[in-house]
Amino acid sequence: MSHFLQTHIREIISISDDELEMIQNLFDKKKFRKRQFLIQENQPVNEIYLIEKGIVKSSTIDSTGKEHILQFGAPHWWISDFAAFFKQEISSLAVDCIEDSEVYAISYENLNALCLQLPAMEHFFRIKSNFGYVALQQRILSLMSKTAKERYEDFVKQYPGFMDHLPKQLIASYLGVSRETLSRLYS
Amino acid sequence: MSHFLQTHIREIISISDDELEMIQNLFDKKKFRKRQFLIQENQPVNEIYLIEKGIVKSSTIDSTGKEHILQFGAPHWWISDFAAFFKQEISSLAVDCIEDSEVYAISYENLNALCLQLPAMEHFFRIKSNFGYVALQQRILSLMSKTAKERYEDFVKQYPGFMDHLPKQLIASYLGVSRETLSRLYS
Repeated sequence: MSHFLQTHIREIISISDDELEMIQNLFDKKKFRKRQFLIQENQPVNEIYLIEKGIVKSSTIDSTGKEHILQFGAPHWWISDFAAFFKQEISSLAVDCIEDSEVYAISYENLNALCLQLPAMEHFFRIKSNFGYVALQQRILSLMSKTAKERYEDFVKQYPGFMDHLPKQLIASYLGVSRETLSRLYS
Repeated sequence: MSHFLQTHIREIISISDDELEMIQNLFDKKKFRKRQFLIQENQPVNEIYLIEKGIVKSSTIDSTGKEHILQFGAPHWWISDFAAFFKQEISSLAVDCIEDSEVYAISYENLNALCLQLPAMEHFFRIKSNFGYVALQQRILSLMSKTAKERYEDFVKQYPGFMDHLPKQLIASYLGVSRETLSRLYS
């Protein structure tokens, strides 16, 4: 049984080893190389991903060709184009790897079947969704009301240890500042 | 039994009349006048609110005294300081009424008891949370990658019929543009 999956799920709910075995069978383990895409834009999205190793990002390219990063994902984070997944629409985001990564993927059908069969997992995903919601709320408030310097400080707090792994250009794209502004905040 | 609550819940899940009665008993019906606060900043937050009538907003005031609006809520929308509620911390947002409003309030304890007792309600709140997450995701992408004009068009789509009810200053605070910029987009 996956030690990683076990730790991740038991952090929130109590379940038996048999239930955990059943849950694990509904996930697919997948490996991706640096720069490989988990999701490309304008495609159907049928999976969400729990990251076991590596760093992944979700982003969009605007009409001028500029990349805007919605989320970084590290081990124990979930990532996908959630809007496309939950609404079963085509993606507006791309999800790709900043480093070689390993993920647990679960399909829309398996997620719903699992929640129906195991109320504890419905609870697990409700709690995860609530905390995801809260993280996005902080990000909106940050984008609306904070200076570039404050946003940078929030970032360092939210993604501890990320600074050494991420190219500066990607951090700038996440914060919505230019590469030059970021360099000033840094030093 | 409340016709409103019944419609709202049965849009997502199937439940019996007895279950609905039980659910309703866990909610408090509350009335607020225009400008009254459901939540003030820096207070414990122990309730989330389902709006039956009126219009409510959640917002924050930055260090320069400027208001930034995170969310507007109309009938069938849920509103609170969700970050403070789910983490059981003090509020960073204020939630107040733009018009006289009536809401169904449920406490943190009652919400958790209800989800434990009725798995269908755990499902209901997971789905609500997922769609709330998706709405925030769109808003972040909108703030990061769209022009003021595109953000205004998104707003009109997301809040149909709101334009006639909201003071222009509030719409500007939601979009993150000046009152003058909004006037230009308008005409």
